[in-house]
Amino acid sequence: MRKLVEFIPNFSVSSQKDEETFNRLVEVAQSVPGCTLLDAQSDGSHNRSVFTMTGSPQAIEEVAFRLCKKAAETIDLRKHQGAHPRMGATDVMPFVPTQDVSLEECIALSKRVAERIWNELKIPCFLYEDSCSSEERRNLATIRRGEFEGMAEKLLLPEWQPDYGDRKPHPTAGVTAVGARMPLVAFNVNLDSDDLEIAKTIAKTIRGSSGGFKYCKAMGVRIEETGKVQVSMNMVNYEKTALYETFDAIKKLAGEAGISITGSEIVGLTPAKALIDVAAHYLKLEGFDCYKQVMEYHLGE
Amino acid sequence: MRKLVEFIPNFSVSSQKDEETFNRLVEVAQSVPGCTLLDAQSDGSHNRSVFTMTGSPQAIEEVAFRLCKKAAETIDLRKHQGAHPRMGATDVMPFVPTQDVSLEECIALSKRVAERIWNELKIPCFLYEDSCSSEERRNLATIRRGEFEGMAEKLLLPEWQPDYGDRKPHPTAGVTAVGARMPLVAFNVNLDSDDLEIAKTIAKTIRGSSGGFKYCKAMGVRIEETGKVQVSMNMVNYEKTALYETFDAIKKLAGEAGISITGSEIVGLTPAKALIDVAAHYLKLEGFDCYKQVMEYHLGE
Repeated sequence: MRKLVEFIPNFSVSSQKDEETFNRLVEVAQSVPGCTLLDAQSDGSHNRSVFTMTGSPQAIEEVAFRLCKKAAETIDLRKHQGAHPRMGATDVMPFVPTQDVSLEECIALSKRVAERIWNELKIPCFLYEDSCSSEERRNLATIRRGEFEGMAEKLLLPEWQPDYGDRKPHPTAGVTAVGARMPLVAFNVNLDSDDLEIAKTIAKTIRGSSGGFKYCKAMGVRIEETGKVQVSMNMVNYEKTALYETFDAIKKLAGEAGISITGSEIVGLTPAKALIDVAAHYLKLEGFDCYKQVMEYHLGE
Repeated sequence: MRKLVEFIPNFSVSSQKDEETFNRLVEVAQSVPGCTLLDAQSDGSHNRSVFTMTGSPQAIEEVAFRLCKKAAETIDLRKHQGAHPRMGATDVMPFVPTQDVSLEECIALSKRVAERIWNELKIPCFLYEDSCSSEERRNLATIRRGEFEGMAEKLLLPEWQPDYGDRKPHPTAGVTAVGARMPLVAFNVNLDSDDLEIAKTIAKTIRGSSGGFKYCKAMGVRIEETGKVQVSMNMVNYEKTALYETFDAIKKLAGEAGISITGSEIVGLTPAKALIDVAAHYLKLEGFDCYKQVMEYHLGE
């Protein structure tokens, strides 16, 4: 089976405000054999671009460095204005295990990339998410607080020594966050009720932060179009907290309140395995080896 | 998304009895860019080899012809002995839609391959499975009856004019069956019972041939190791008869007989979509577009 890593770098530039620089970054993203640019989205008011790439670990490691280099050469954060918070020309670089690659391999990859960025480009790097050197650095928002303009001062604080580099941001490219994380599945369950409190109570019961499933973030929301309520979730590690676990728990809790589930939805992308695990659970599959028995995992080898 | 066809040619030769010829076929299978040989199995007593390949429709179309040509050059059926019935050097060539390819595209592909085999190699071809020109020719066993030794006489019968070619087998390569079919999923459901009659009755109720689910073949069997019984199924079109339909039906019928389901199993390979459809059903997913939202379908584009 082919090893694949997903890579979703965020750059502080937009095609709407600087098409030339955006196009240069797209060219670099397409310059390394063995990886593919799946999507390049740009938002003018945020003045920010998000690329979605996939490829072999080696190819992704190389293209990550090249993109960060090109962004440092072409983006000057002293002139950047946009609604989205940012601290670097390349603001954040997450690496996500996708196929036959462990989270640990992606963590090691992210550390090599961050080290090379400091050594060759002199951009200080913070490790975040599952690559973090301490729990205080897991959350990107915490690292980024103060943004580019406040970063020179922040790096001098005792607790904000970068993981790679000196206590001084790059003059035009700032600092960059680099890290590995599991793919995230946005999974919502719709309730046949207009009682927002019920949805909020169920969300609170199942989410990790209040003692529920460790790898589930959840909130109760009302859907404007229908007036009905929903338990809206981010499944941050579907291997450790499966979609069926939260679905069954919500079904049970709603049932105790006399409410039925009308359906569910997945927003955006999901790894096949998050759903194959659901099928295996409900069919009570025995002795099933997903990576050996699912045809698509053998394609493109 | 990348278009992919699976191709599983069967050759009347084995590595155990003629390693040289087997190796030549493996070389040819690896000679066309854009397709991959996933597996090459050989059985000495059957004196037969089965290759499993995948690739773009164009690449598979080309490699299919090249393999048939090499087999005709290197296998002499007049000398072939083996336990497995056969009628051609290349005995049968099924094409299976795997990713972003319709069954109709595979049918058209199979007809082009069969026509070229007749035109350039002078091997008569029958179209079978979903490519068949009449229902009497859908089943491979019906076409192959009489085997190589009886084929000269059979082709002279009014109803056995080949779909491509004259009423005369190739002198050393015989005739070949070419066709398209949906991927097959071998899916078994285990019952907490040692009563074979129960399993047989359930199998009869759910299988297409006795009025049940059209695209489900089923039989009741006893598992020697456990003494328990099983409903053993071939799901021949999981898009038209889904795995969850038969699973739920078996669960209901067994329940009516006071028997529970202990588990199920998938034997060999399955397309991811056969299981993703199961997950979407049990989670009641709304507005879900498998090909757009499952990450793996975008890989290797």
